[in-house]
Amino acid sequence: MLTLYYAAHTCSLASHIALADAGAVYELKRIDFRTGEQQSPDYLRINPKGRVPALATQRGILTETPAMLAFIAQGFPEAGLAPADDAFAFAELQAFNSYLCSTVHVAHAHRMRGQRWADEETSLADMKRKAPRSVGACFETIETHMLRGPWVMGDRYTIADPYLFTLAQWLEADGVDLTRIPRVIEHRSRMAGRPNVRKAIAEELAP
Amino acid sequence: MLTLYYAAHTCSLASHIALADAGAVYELKRIDFRTGEQQSPDYLRINPKGRVPALATQRGILTETPAMLAFIAQGFPEAGLAPADDAFAFAELQAFNSYLCSTVHVAHAHRMRGQRWADEETSLADMKRKAPRSVGACFETIETHMLRGPWVMGDRYTIADPYLFTLAQWLEADGVDLTRIPRVIEHRSRMAGRPNVRKAIAEELAP
Repeated sequence: MLTLYYAAHTCSLASHIALADAGAVYELKRIDFRTGEQQSPDYLRINPKGRVPALATQRGILTETPAMLAFIAQGFPEAGLAPADDAFAFAELQAFNSYLCSTVHVAHAHRMRGQRWADEETSLADMKRKAPRSVGACFETIETHMLRGPWVMGDRYTIADPYLFTLAQWLEADGVDLTRIPRVIEHRSRMAGRPNVRKAIAEELAP
Repeated sequence: MLTLYYAAHTCSLASHIALADAGAVYELKRIDFRTGEQQSPDYLRINPKGRVPALATQRGILTETPAMLAFIAQGFPEAGLAPADDAFAFAELQAFNSYLCSTVHVAHAHRMRGQRWADEETSLADMKRKAPRSVGACFETIETHMLRGPWVMGDRYTIADPYLFTLAQWLEADGVDLTRIPRVIEHRSRMAGRPNVRKAIAEELAP
């Protein structure tokens, strides 16, 4: 049994969709960001970093979306969510996911979580003003150079697809000009129609 | 043949050390940040993201340190730089490296590269003031919860070790209080004594 610690509207959705795609048996534990539960002593025992997602497994806890996604893919090889036995193709996939976590998600985080890196209200407002451009530039790089189509890595659906979809949920709130990234938007629409994506979102938004 | 595109004093050092540890045959191409070579048309054809490192392989170009490190480990399994055939242990290792790229390196980047996320001089100065605390908090998390010892993942040296060592090069410049992270500093000292580490640093600093 796998247990996913998640919060709605966060990057934990990527792992949630991947668990469904893998055909895994999993349970969900919601972490309530409104009450700051991610910083509670109980949750810090699960993830000392005080963030979601975390995945409890029989061997212990895993964190960090790219690592969790690769674990899900490798743990359920019959689902074919990552190239097996091809180190180069696997590395290309991991490079895509690493760009999402280290650059794209980070650019987005400056709109609402600027206090991680600065203290003054004027700085936080400056970061918020820049988010449409910094997030937009990331997605234009994806649009032009990285998204192969129809899926991120080409003909085959992989763990990169739910991760890109998850971050693309935030484009409107981030103020990005969607007309400049039509292929990303088409990918997002196609993902939104998949039953596992609809199931995962419905589970996260349930009362 | 593998070709590493690098710049001194950047995170490309991690992959450089790993290539030496793997016993790989590699050549080095220095990218001159002083002249902005990372944004030159020639280099953007190699890495459209305009960053280092990049690794040219027979199959194509790889970017993003966690993906490159895993590729090096998997491509040279006899060097034993990552757990083979154990998806959980591999995911734990990738989670550590993912934290380095998405949180630790990002905190550091706010000291000198704040213009990625804000425009005003006052914001950049604010970010610079906060870097000792934000980078320091990351390394205290590593010190307390993540660095197993003697190597990052425990008894076995892995690709997490050169990556942690690389980011720990910047602690003094980031203004972090080293007395709070003695295990990280001990690890850094032990890494600095390894012949491959000395070789990689000497190659990068050569005229």
